[in-house]
Amino acid sequence: MKLGEGVEWGMHCCTVLALLPTDATLPAARLAEFHGVPAAYLAKHLQALARGGIVESVPGPRGGYRLSRPATAITLLDVVEAVEGTAPAFRCTEIRQRGPASLPVREYRVACSITRAMHRAEEAWRADLRSQTVADLLVALAQDVNPRAAVKAAAWFQEVIS
Amino acid sequence: MKLGEGVEWGMHCCTVLALLPTDATLPAARLAEFHGVPAAYLAKHLQALARGGIVESVPGPRGGYRLSRPATAITLLDVVEAVEGTAPAFRCTEIRQRGPASLPVREYRVACSITRAMHRAEEAWRADLRSQTVADLLVALAQDVNPRAAVKAAAWFQEVIS
Repeated sequence: MKLGEGVEWGMHCCTVLALLPTDATLPAARLAEFHGVPAAYLAKHLQALARGGIVESVPGPRGGYRLSRPATAITLLDVVEAVEGTAPAFRCTEIRQRGPASLPVREYRVACSITRAMHRAEEAWRADLRSQTVADLLVALAQDVNPRAAVKAAAWFQEVIS
Repeated sequence: MKLGEGVEWGMHCCTVLALLPTDATLPAARLAEFHGVPAAYLAKHLQALARGGIVESVPGPRGGYRLSRPATAITLLDVVEAVEGTAPAFRCTEIRQRGPASLPVREYRVACSITRAMHRAEEAWRADLRSQTVADLLVALAQDVNPRAAVKAAAWFQEVIS
C-alpha cells in the first residue's frame, strides 16, 4: 500500500499555516522556503489543498495562503482526501465474474465479500484519520519539538510575517 | 492511497484453495482457469503467497498449490503483507530536517509527529485486517453467494479434483 508524497507535504504545510497569527497569510514562496524546496514543487500540493477547501489563497501584495477554518476543524482525513482523492485503496475488478463459475452481470447484486472485508479495514483507517486534527499535530509538535528548532522557526516566522 | 491488484488476486486464490478437501491441491493452471486468466498472469502472485508462507506448492504429477495452514489461521493482513510487503504506506522523508528551522540530523531523536499520526491510522487498518481471516471470507461467501454460481463452482471443483 502506498500513499503519495503529496500527503506528507500537505500535512507539513497545514501545520505551518496553523502556526500563523489570526488573519496572517504566508505566500507560497515563503512556505516553500520554510520547507527548503522550490516553490514550483509545492504549488500543486497547495492547489490540491485549496481545491479541497482546507487552505485559501488571499490575493494582493500582502496576500498568501492561510487555513480556511480552525486547525481543530481540519481532520487528517480532510488533508489526505484533498491530496489523494477519495477512491478506495482496494479496487475490486470483479474477479468473481470470470471463469467457469461466472454468471451474467445482473446476477451480482451484493458486493464481493473480499471487497467488503478490505473496505471495512480501510474504514478503520479513515475513522482514525477522522479522529485526528491538524490541531492535534500542533499539540504533539509542541510536546516534542527540539527547543533549538522552535527558536529558529520562531525567528523565521517573526521575520516573514512582520 | 493505492493497493496493488495482486492483493485482490491473492485473496481470491486463498479463498478458492480454502475450499479444497484436506490434502487436495490445485495446479496453478487450474487456479488460473477458475479465475479466467492466463496461468502466467497468476504466477507471480502465487509465488508471493508461497514466499509469505501462506500457500505451498506440492510437486509431482498430482501436485499443485494448497494453503500452508488452516484458513482460520491466515489473516487478511498475512495475505496483504505477502503480496505488498510490510513497508508503511506513509513514508516519512524527514521534511522537518529541511529549511531555516532545521538542525543537525543527530538532534532528531523522536519520530516526526506527522509520521506518528499517520502510522497510528495505518495500525488501525492493520489491526482490522489482522482480525479477519480467510475463513471469515468463506463464511461471508457462503452467506451471499448466488446459488447458481455455487452449483457451477462445485461442478468445476468435482471435475478437477477427482
